[in-house]
Amino acid sequence: MFGFINIPNDLLFDVIQHPYFQRLQRIKQLGLSAFVYPGAQHTRLQHSLGAMYLTNEALKQLRQQGCNITQAEADGVLTAILLHDIGHGPFSHVLEETLVHHVSHEDISLMLMQRMNDNMNGRLELAIRIFRDDYPKRFLHQLISSQLDMDRMDYLQRDCFFTGVAEGKIGSARIIKMLNVHNDKLVVEAKGIYSIENFLIARRFMYWQVYLHKTSVAAEKMLVQILRRAKELALRGERLFASPALAYFLENRIDENDFDDTALQHFVALDDTDVWSAIKVWSQHDDVVLGTLSRMFINRQLFKTMVCAPLTAAERTDLLRKYAAHFGVSMDEAAYFVYEQTVTTRTYDNRDSQILILFGDGTTRDIADVSDILDNDFLGKHVEKNYLCYLPY
Amino acid sequence: MFGFINIPNDLLFDVIQHPYFQRLQRIKQLGLSAFVYPGAQHTRLQHSLGAMYLTNEALKQLRQQGCNITQAEADGVLTAILLHDIGHGPFSHVLEETLVHHVSHEDISLMLMQRMNDNMNGRLELAIRIFRDDYPKRFLHQLISSQLDMDRMDYLQRDCFFTGVAEGKIGSARIIKMLNVHNDKLVVEAKGIYSIENFLIARRFMYWQVYLHKTSVAAEKMLVQILRRAKELALRGERLFASPALAYFLENRIDENDFDDTALQHFVALDDTDVWSAIKVWSQHDDVVLGTLSRMFINRQLFKTMVCAPLTAAERTDLLRKYAAHFGVSMDEAAYFVYEQTVTTRTYDNRDSQILILFGDGTTRDIADVSDILDNDFLGKHVEKNYLCYLPY
Amino acid sequence: MFGFINIPNDLLFDVIQHPYFQRLQRIKQLGLSAFVYPGAQHTRLQHSLGAMYLTNEALKQLRQQGCNITQAEADGVLTAILLHDIGHGPFSHVLEETLVHHVSHEDISLMLMQRMNDNMNGRLELAIRIFRDDYPKRFLHQLISSQLDMDRMDYLQRDCFFTGVAEGKIGSARIIKMLNVHNDKLVVEAKGIYSIENFLIARRFMYWQVYLHKTSVAAEKMLVQILRRAKELALRGERLFASPALAYFLENRIDENDFDDTALQHFVALDDTDVWSAIKVWSQHDDVVLGTLSRMFINRQLFKTMVCAPLTAAERTDLLRKYAAHFGVSMDEAAYFVYEQTVTTRTYDNRDSQILILFGDGTTRDIADVSDILDNDFLGKHVEKNYLCYLPY
Amino acid sequence: MFGFINIPNDLLFDVIQHPYFQRLQRIKQLGLSAFVYPGAQHTRLQHSLGAMYLTNEALKQLRQQGCNITQAEADGVLTAILLHDIGHGPFSHVLEETLVHHVSHEDISLMLMQRMNDNMNGRLELAIRIFRDDYPKRFLHQLISSQLDMDRMDYLQRDCFFTGVAEGKIGSARIIKMLNVHNDKLVVEAKGIYSIENFLIARRFMYWQVYLHKTSVAAEKMLVQILRRAKELALRGERLFASPALAYFLENRIDENDFDDTALQHFVALDDTDVWSAIKVWSQHDDVVLGTLSRMFINRQLFKTMVCAPLTAAERTDLLRKYAAHFGVSMDEAAYFVYEQTVTTRTYDNRDSQILILFGDGTTRDIADVSDILDNDFLGKHVEKNYLCYLPY
Repeated sequence: MFGFINIPNDLLFDVIQHPYFQRLQRIKQLGLSAFVYPGAQHTRLQHSLGAMYLTNEALKQLRQQGCNITQAEADGVLTAILLHDIGHGPFSHVLEETLVHHVSHEDISLMLMQRMNDNMNGRLELAIRIFRDDYPKRFLHQLISSQLDMDRMDYLQRDCFFTGVAEGKIGSARIIKMLNVHNDKLVVEAKGIYSIENFLIARRFMYWQVYLHKTSVAAEKMLVQILRRAKELALRGERLFASPALAYFLENRIDENDFDDTALQHFVALDDTDVWSAIKVWSQHDDVVLGTLSRMFINRQLFKTMVCAPLTAAERTDLLRKYAAHFGVSMDEAAYFVYEQTVTTRTYDNRDSQILILFGDGTTRDIADVSDILDNDFLGKHVEKNYLCYLPY
Repeated sequence: MFGFINIPNDLLFDVIQHPYFQRLQRIKQLGLSAFVYPGAQHTRLQHSLGAMYLTNEALKQLRQQGCNITQAEADGVLTAILLHDIGHGPFSHVLEETLVHHVSHEDISLMLMQRMNDNMNGRLELAIRIFRDDYPKRFLHQLISSQLDMDRMDYLQRDCFFTGVAEGKIGSARIIKMLNVHNDKLVVEAKGIYSIENFLIARRFMYWQVYLHKTSVAAEKMLVQILRRAKELALRGERLFASPALAYFLENRIDENDFDDTALQHFVALDDTDVWSAIKVWSQHDDVVLGTLSRMFINRQLFKTMVCAPLTAAERTDLLRKYAAHFGVSMDEAAYFVYEQTVTTRTYDNRDSQILILFGDGTTRDIADVSDILDNDFLGKHVEKNYLCYLPY
Repeated sequence: MFGFINIPNDLLFDVIQHPYFQRLQRIKQLGLSAFVYPGAQHTRLQHSLGAMYLTNEALKQLRQQGCNITQAEADGVLTAILLHDIGHGPFSHVLEETLVHHVSHEDISLMLMQRMNDNMNGRLELAIRIFRDDYPKRFLHQLISSQLDMDRMDYLQRDCFFTGVAEGKIGSARIIKMLNVHNDKLVVEAKGIYSIENFLIARRFMYWQVYLHKTSVAAEKMLVQILRRAKELALRGERLFASPALAYFLENRIDENDFDDTALQHFVALDDTDVWSAIKVWSQHDDVVLGTLSRMFINRQLFKTMVCAPLTAAERTDLLRKYAAHFGVSMDEAAYFVYEQTVTTRTYDNRDSQILILFGDGTTRDIADVSDILDNDFLGKHVEKNYLCYLPY
Repeated sequence: MFGFINIPNDLLFDVIQHPYFQRLQRIKQLGLSAFVYPGAQHTRLQHSLGAMYLTNEALKQLRQQGCNITQAEADGVLTAILLHDIGHGPFSHVLEETLVHHVSHEDISLMLMQRMNDNMNGRLELAIRIFRDDYPKRFLHQLISSQLDMDRMDYLQRDCFFTGVAEGKIGSARIIKMLNVHNDKLVVEAKGIYSIENFLIARRFMYWQVYLHKTSVAAEKMLVQILRRAKELALRGERLFASPALAYFLENRIDENDFDDTALQHFVALDDTDVWSAIKVWSQHDDVVLGTLSRMFINRQLFKTMVCAPLTAAERTDLLRKYAAHFGVSMDEAAYFVYEQTVTTRTYDNRDSQILILFGDGTTRDIADVSDILDNDFLGKHVEKNYLCYLPY
């Protein structure tokens, strides 16, 4: 997508060659979106390299604007962006709902970065400080985490490229050429306003057309139910086919207090392939819930999704009763065939972190205050949808 | 842009080979935008071929949806779209302000189509009826002129491709795949909503970044002043270098009542090259106004543009007085060095013609009523800017 | 890559939804090339859909040329191209060297098509005849298998797109527009000569830059050695972690005579994920050969490759002795750390099947006889290289 | 094509704003190719900016390789590449056959650069030395003129982009990343061999598909005949419509000895628009030759072209006699309706200047000696074709 990407120096080369980083090659960026967009096969490794490339472009631009960035700082921010997703497991959000509780991928990223730092004689110290926003030049942290960070800049472009969704196209090269630093904050020069507006709108399009696409959500929820059921069975003592790493997370309840070295070691051995190869085997399992869901999942017979009002308790009972009768299972088991969720999205939220526009006279203003096209109403508008996912039979 | 474009049959081939059509090869689609975007060299001929290609794709799609379109009707609509811009002169809007009064390019297109029809034994009869919206299947006219016509579909894509403005990118292939006809109206199926939203937003971006770019507007206004001055001198009897076709429009006041055969004959001999080659010669002219403006225009020393409140009468007098003093010209002549204009744009106007969305249950609704992202406020919002263009010295 | 691909009808939809076809979503087209080109994540499912799309374009073109193709024939050829790769296992050539002997993927494709045909009430009959070249209109078979088939047309483009290798770019749309049928043979019209020349040269570039890239070959050979060792251990009775499908092929010697229903059933359960998830577990195995190779493979510490003269017996013994000493293994075991192979490629081979050019006078000639640029010497030239792959330590 | 191009500094900005440079905006890069490829509207100004961009990329690369290039040298080479085509007239080769004799565009470029240098207080001194290959670091000259110069690198890509000829695609970004300097010569590192091979082949494709396309050649030869006839009439004292600049070259025989200041002043006033606007007027001229050729040219009724053996004297007389009879003109006048020419092309000529490949051991070898794919026979092969162009009637 960006052509041939140069690896700037030995430090970054060592980071890229590290087994923790190489694992990202076996984790797809978009999880299950390939059920909808068959081209969406790109990996978290590709995304991390791409984000490093864009960050490097941004650093060049900022230096050209007269911003003082030492070589050590540049290496720090490049390392931090390379590693920002290192704590992602396979099918990230799915996993967080099932195998690992109350441990965010950011937390795990930080733990892994610290272990790598120990192995690498402290060469990641500065990267870690920037990653934690614990470094004086705070704009460096904004390059890796803010409303205009290089993470988003890469994933929007990449996801739009590999899904083929024309509406998500952004002009990252142009946005980067408009970056500057003002009072230690990343800002965009006024002539970049249109590009920023387009970036915010493109992001909204990608939410509805890709990230929250009904079929993707259906597949994701189906996978949640499969893993929950597998874990329930495993905790009951049932032996299921699984790699040792996957088995560990099925057979143990792991939450933030248990996330010790053993957990971490198993975590870094886990990737998409463990999950897929297990589900294929489970599709022959004689537990009706696990067998049925796994078999249908593998063969792309996915949940159906309706956007509708939330079910009332009575409607829900009614629905589960039908599944219980059809499959000859208990009401609790029937609940695995249904999943309900309300999702919300907003284009831009300046309570969180702002996008500042820099004018010729040296003043800065929030994008929401200066956009002809987009105003606060539009940008801040919540869109909320209730998704009901259920097994068709 | 669309690769190799097939010419469907002999009728269309004859239309394309007609001198009136070939003239469009010598008229740039974006007039003076190349002063801003050097790649914007594409011609009205390219645009017309592209619009024919997209119309052909749309016809295939509509037929696949079960819509009955005879071969004669298909040829009619393809011919009509090929010829929809045939009445454009060089630098269209400039010309309409200077050389030709109260005659729109649509009127001229129709006159030229009728003359071609006479030469071609009435083979363009149906095309003309569709062009005039005087044919029962009115959705055919909508393909060539409506809020979703193939004219816009081509020019937005093409202008965005050749200027390199990433924000104007639209997914025309996807929009066309969502087209249908309902109650003799062109409609878009519900799953195409995102593409339509993107199309409307992209159009707004193109307005501000390309069509109304400050430097393009400046160049256009400068050209208006050059031609006005040249015409004033010519009408006074001054001999100016000009091709016979250009001379005709400089030496005669032509409005809707005078637009006779002689005018038409000179009109079809006129293209961008007459204007450029004349201005180069005028740049040596000893009239201060004509010489100065022409010389600066040729060398890309353009008007400056400010977006500001309209000048008061006093401010204007003051400004003109400075030019009069600086150049040693009269106040009337000084007025050629300044141009003021208020421009307005709106994303979508459903008073004019609607974009209808077709739902699974057979109902249709206006895009403004069903869009999550865009609402009537946003879509209908007027943006108005006052441009003051003036010669820097 | 081709945008939104339409599925022409229910038959094709059913084929695509079939579990055998969905399995291709879990098999990468380029196996291990992602070690070199991280973007090369595309799957055999994507390729099969793309080849179907191109075949459909080719059918439209041939019909427009006046070629008589019934709807049943069109469906047959589209089904055949969809299924042409259905018999591929994960890491195809690797597998054929290790787990399955003397059974080509074409043989397996045919077996699987026949089973699908049984399930689908004989609806694939015609597709199978075309696939086997057992149908009178032989040009239909050429669309799916010949020097100009839609298989190559898709994979060259797709592999070049996802690897980013600019030199492999071909103009498939243009080639398809030049197709015709002459004496029941697929031919290309004379004005398509340049596109064909480019296609042949591009293919040669892709061979050396992608398919036979030193690092890809190294990874492939390393995987061969890993699977051979695992099979050796498994056949000795050692229990290795593996999914049931993979275990079956490790624990049994399967060749063409044993490829029965049981083998087939395990075969269709096998994909890339079984191999990856097993190797990750094997990387902790205490067999030095299996553990070392697996660990290094997973972490992208690959064999090195040299292009050099074949090793003499003495050189080979010498080399193995070093590995034996270093790793404390037997000479036989040491042989797993080295792999030697001679690869050959040729741009165009008209002994096999020709590319015929059709001239305006109705005659046809072989591309090698009419190309200005390429002559028989060039096209037929063998390039042969001996690769020595070995574990660095 | 390359996105937003930065102008590195004030010197280059001043060069770009100079009227001589702005004139290139009114001269199409590919002259008459738009008759064949309607998208081929790009100008010499675009090409010059693009070549500057690539040269800047190449300079960055060479510096990264440790090559010492001062800021003044960088500015010099960037200025030289910007101005390398400044001496081109409209329809370059046509002009050289008709209006200007024995004065090459390189000679004129140099004259214009010297005049600009005089106006700009000697700031172009170094650029001129590099342009003339009169500067010690000779590799700088190679960037602007050699078998691998940035001129070709840009025009091949640009011409292929705007014509849409897929076969001309090259990977310039990759080639530039492989550049180095060895013994004051530009060299390409060994892993760039495939890109170079592709570049040489792409160039050959562009020759036959674009630069020597039969219809382009036909249009060009027709324009030659029009201008020759116009000049013949003008020299006889006939008054023809023409801008003063064009009139000067029609009414005077200008060769290398007469190319004085007056000629130069008229030359820089000349561009494509003078020629087109004159021919439109001439299409009404009552000289049969001038009127007929001009009218047909304007309306795209071009010469036909045959590739055939050269005409014998008898055949030629016979042919001219037919034209003389048909049009009622003399034999001399009839000769204007026919044009014969033999064109030759070769992929690579190392007698002229070599492409050197740099190996890891520090040795360099000619590409023709190391290419697997291309050998000397292939690369050096002359292809020669005799084109007969004639007016169809």
